[in-house]
Amino acid sequence: MSEKLTKLQEELKKIQNLNHITSLLYWDMKTIMPKEGFGRHSEVLTAFSTDCFKLETSDELYALVKELNAPCEYESLDDDWKFIVKRMLRDMEESRRIPAEFFSEMVQAQAESSVAWEEAKNASDFSIFAPHLEKMISEQRQKALYMQPDKDPYDTMIGWYEEGMDVASIDRIFEELKKELIPLVKDILSRPKTEDARFFRPTDLNAQKQLEKVLLRYIGFDFNKGCTGESEHPFTLELSANDVRVTNHFQETNPIDPMFSAIHEGGHAIFEQNIKPSLDGTAGGSCSYMGIHESQSRFYENILGRRKAFWIPIYGELQKILPTFADISIDDFVKEINHVRASMIRTESDEVTYCLHILLRYEMEKEIFRNNVPVSELPVLWNQKMEEFLGVTPANDAEGILQDMHWSDGGFGYFPSYLLGSIYDGMFLEKMEEELGSVDEILEKGEILKITAWLNEKIHQYGSTRLPKEVIEKVTGKPLSSASLIRYFKEKHGK
Amino acid sequence: MSEKLTKLQEELKKIQNLNHITSLLYWDMKTIMPKEGFGRHSEVLTAFSTDCFKLETSDELYALVKELNAPCEYESLDDDWKFIVKRMLRDMEESRRIPAEFFSEMVQAQAESSVAWEEAKNASDFSIFAPHLEKMISEQRQKALYMQPDKDPYDTMIGWYEEGMDVASIDRIFEELKKELIPLVKDILSRPKTEDARFFRPTDLNAQKQLEKVLLRYIGFDFNKGCTGESEHPFTLELSANDVRVTNHFQETNPIDPMFSAIHEGGHAIFEQNIKPSLDGTAGGSCSYMGIHESQSRFYENILGRRKAFWIPIYGELQKILPTFADISIDDFVKEINHVRASMIRTESDEVTYCLHILLRYEMEKEIFRNNVPVSELPVLWNQKMEEFLGVTPANDAEGILQDMHWSDGGFGYFPSYLLGSIYDGMFLEKMEEELGSVDEILEKGEILKITAWLNEKIHQYGSTRLPKEVIEKVTGKPLSSASLIRYFKEKHGK
Repeated sequence: MSEKLTKLQEELKKIQNLNHITSLLYWDMKTIMPKEGFGRHSEVLTAFSTDCFKLETSDELYALVKELNAPCEYESLDDDWKFIVKRMLRDMEESRRIPAEFFSEMVQAQAESSVAWEEAKNASDFSIFAPHLEKMISEQRQKALYMQPDKDPYDTMIGWYEEGMDVASIDRIFEELKKELIPLVKDILSRPKTEDARFFRPTDLNAQKQLEKVLLRYIGFDFNKGCTGESEHPFTLELSANDVRVTNHFQETNPIDPMFSAIHEGGHAIFEQNIKPSLDGTAGGSCSYMGIHESQSRFYENILGRRKAFWIPIYGELQKILPTFADISIDDFVKEINHVRASMIRTESDEVTYCLHILLRYEMEKEIFRNNVPVSELPVLWNQKMEEFLGVTPANDAEGILQDMHWSDGGFGYFPSYLLGSIYDGMFLEKMEEELGSVDEILEKGEILKITAWLNEKIHQYGSTRLPKEVIEKVTGKPLSSASLIRYFKEKHGK
Repeated sequence: MSEKLTKLQEELKKIQNLNHITSLLYWDMKTIMPKEGFGRHSEVLTAFSTDCFKLETSDELYALVKELNAPCEYESLDDDWKFIVKRMLRDMEESRRIPAEFFSEMVQAQAESSVAWEEAKNASDFSIFAPHLEKMISEQRQKALYMQPDKDPYDTMIGWYEEGMDVASIDRIFEELKKELIPLVKDILSRPKTEDARFFRPTDLNAQKQLEKVLLRYIGFDFNKGCTGESEHPFTLELSANDVRVTNHFQETNPIDPMFSAIHEGGHAIFEQNIKPSLDGTAGGSCSYMGIHESQSRFYENILGRRKAFWIPIYGELQKILPTFADISIDDFVKEINHVRASMIRTESDEVTYCLHILLRYEMEKEIFRNNVPVSELPVLWNQKMEEFLGVTPANDAEGILQDMHWSDGGFGYFPSYLLGSIYDGMFLEKMEEELGSVDEILEKGEILKITAWLNEKIHQYGSTRLPKEVIEKVTGKPLSSASLIRYFKEKHGK
C-alpha cells in the first residue's frame, strides 16, 4: 500500500472518530437525553461537528487527496479506493468553500430549530417554528451557494440527497406518476369503505415494543449489530456496519403504524449492516444516496410488508403478542394495511396516497426555493395543496405543515427521495421476480431472508460506491421510469 | 475577571467537552450498544480519553495553572476558584508523570477487561477474567507509582476515591466496627427466621420499571435533569448537573433488589443534580469523594429506605403497580427488607451484613497490593473469607469473586468508600434528627423532600470543594467515628 494511502487512512480514522461521537450525541439527544441536558449536548455537538468539518476541509488533507488523484497514484488504487479519493476530492472542493464559522453557526441553529419544531408541533403553533424555519431556509440556500455558486440552490440540495438528480429530471419522472396517480386515488377514494374500529383499540405499549423486535428479526435485522430506541419521529442511525440503530414512536391506540415504521427503518438498517466491512469509515462505507436508501426501507415496508404472504408466517405470533388482534383475521388485517385513505399525516398514510404527500412536499420546496414564497404564507399553501391533492384540509398546523421533522433541521431536498425510492422499487420488484420467482411464494414459505440476501448481494454491499443511476442499471438493466410502479399500483389497487 | 482565569475557563471547556463524550460513550456501552459495536466504541473511547489526558497534562495548561497559583493571582480568586486551581495543580503534578502511551494502553485494557469480566461472570469461569485481572492489578499499581512514587500504591489508590484516607486510618475505623459487627451478625443469624416465598414471585419487568420511576421521583430525583437506563450492574453517571443518569438491573423473580438499587443510585444522582451550577465543568463540579458520595446513596437506600415510615406514603401505589404485592402487608414488607441473611451477593445483602462484604473486599485488596497474593489464589481466598465472615461458601465464582464489576476495570480502592459512607451516615442521621426532629415523623408525613433539601444545603451544593473531613466536620461538628453507626445497628437489629 502506498505511503499516501496509509496517511489518508489515518486521517479518515480521525474523521470517523469525530463522526462517531457526533452521531452518538444525535442518537442520545433524540432518544433519551433529559430536557435540561440539551444545552451541554448541543454545545458539545457543535464543537465536535466543527472540529470534524475543519479536519474534512483542511489544507493538508486536501493536498493529500489531490496527490492521490494524480494519475500515477490513482492508477495504483483498487476500484473502491478510486471511488473514495475521487469522491473526496469533489466533496472537499465544494465544502472548502463553506466558512468554518458559518458551519458552526449552522449546526447550532439546526439543533435549536429542531427543539423549537418539537415545541411548535406539540403546541400546534407555527409561530414558534416560523423564525427557525426562515433561518433554515436562508442557511441552506447559502450553504448550497457556497458549495456550488453557479448552480440553482434547490438543484444542489436535491443532489445532496440523491446524486445525479435535479429538478428537471425529477419533474419529468414525477409528472408521469402524478398524471396517473391523481385519477387512480380519486377512483379508489370514491369506493365505499367503512372504518374498522378494532384496529384502534388501546394496545399495550410494551407488547408493541416486543412485536417490533420480532418484525425486525424476521426481515433480517441483526441484533448483534444493532439496537432499538424510541423517539418523536422514527429514524435509522449507523455508527458503523456493526452498530446500526433504529427508533420507533409508539402510540397506544395506533398499533399498526409502529409495525410499519419498524419494517421501514429495519430496511434502512439492513442496508447499512450489510455494506462490505472494507469500506468502513470511508466515503463509500454508508449509503449516502437517499433515494436508493429509501428504496430499501420502502421495499420492505410496502412491496413486501403490505402483502398477505409477508404476514402468513408470523401472524399467529403477532396475535399472541398483541391480544387485541386475537379476534382479527389475517384477511381483515391485510385489508386494513392496504386501506387507502385521504389522511392528513404522511407517515400514517397508505402506499398510494403516500406518493401524493411527497409530491405536495416537493412542490412546496420548489415554491420556497424557486418562487421565494415567504414563510408566513406556507401553512395556507400547504392546506390548499392538501385540498387539491387529497380533497381534505388540515384542522391545524400540527397535522399540516408542522408534521414532519425534515425541515426542522434544514433537510430540504430530502422528500423527493421517498418517491424516487418507490419508483426504483417498482423496477427492483420486476427484476427480483424474474430472477427469484414469485415473491408471494417466497414469503409464504417463510423464506423472506432469501429476498434480503438478494438485496444484500445486488445493492447493499456496495454502500455508496455505486451511484444511483449505476445501481438501477446494474440491477435492472433498464433506464429509470415510473412505469413499473404505476403498473404495480394499478394491478393492486385498480380494481 | 483576570485574563488568565478566562483562559483557564476556555481550556476547561475543551476538557469538559471531551469528558462529556467519553462519559456518553461509557453510558452507551453499558446500556444499549449492540455486541458487535464494541470494537469501534472502545477505539473511539480510547482515542478521546487519550486526547483528554493530553490536554489535562499539557505543558501550556500546567504553566497557566502554576501562574494562577502564584500569590498575586491566587489572592484575587474567590474561594471556589482557589480550590479549583489548587486542586488542578496537585492533580496535574501527579498525572503529568503518567506517560501518555501508558495511559491509552490502560484505557484500552480496561474496556477489554470489562467485557471479559462480563463473559467470565456469565460463564462462572474465573480463568476468562484472570489474565485481565492480573493486568488491571499491575497497571493500577504502576499508575499509582507514577503518580506518587514515594507512597505505598494501595494508599494512593484509596486516596483517589476518598481524599485524605489511607490504610492506617481505615484500619483504625474499620477495626472498631468489625469487633462489634461480627458478634452482632452471629447473634442475628442465630435467631430463627423463615423465608417468605411471596417476595420471589415472578413480577412483570415493565411494572418494575414503572415503580423505579415512582421511587426516584419520590426521593427527589429530577427527570428534567436525568433519565434511566438498564445495565448489568447499576450505576450513576453525570454529564453535567443538568444531565445525571441512573441505571438498574431488573430480574423477574427478585423485585425488591431493583427498588433498593433505584433508591441507592437515586441518592447518588440527587447529589450530582444539586451541585451549584457555577462549579459546572470544573474540578469542583462533581463530587469526586466516593465515601461522601456513597454516604448519600446509602443514606437514601438504608437509613431512609429501610424504615416503615419511608414506605407509608407510597406503599399503596407500589401495590397498585406490582400486583404481586397486593397480598403483602406493609409490615411484612418492612420485615423482609430488613431481613438479615448470610447472602453470597453484596448487592443483594441487607444493611448489616453488607458491611462485612465490604470488610472482606478491603482485606482482599490489602492481600493483593500489600501481600502480593497471586491472582490464581484469589478465588479460594475469597471463599475462605466468606466462611470466616458469614459462615457460608460460594458454590461458584459467579457468586464469589466474579460478582462485582469494580475490579473489572481496575477500580481498586473503591470498596472501602461504601463502608465509609455508612459510617458517615450514622453521624449525619444523628445531626439531622437534632436539627429537623424525628426522621420517622418527617417520612410518615410524606415530607421526604425536606430531608433531601437538608442534604442539598449541607452537602450536595458544594460538589468537591469541601474535602471529606471538612464535610464531616461542618455537618456534624465531630471527628470521624464508627460509634454512631454501631449504635444505629444495635438499636435497630440488636433485640
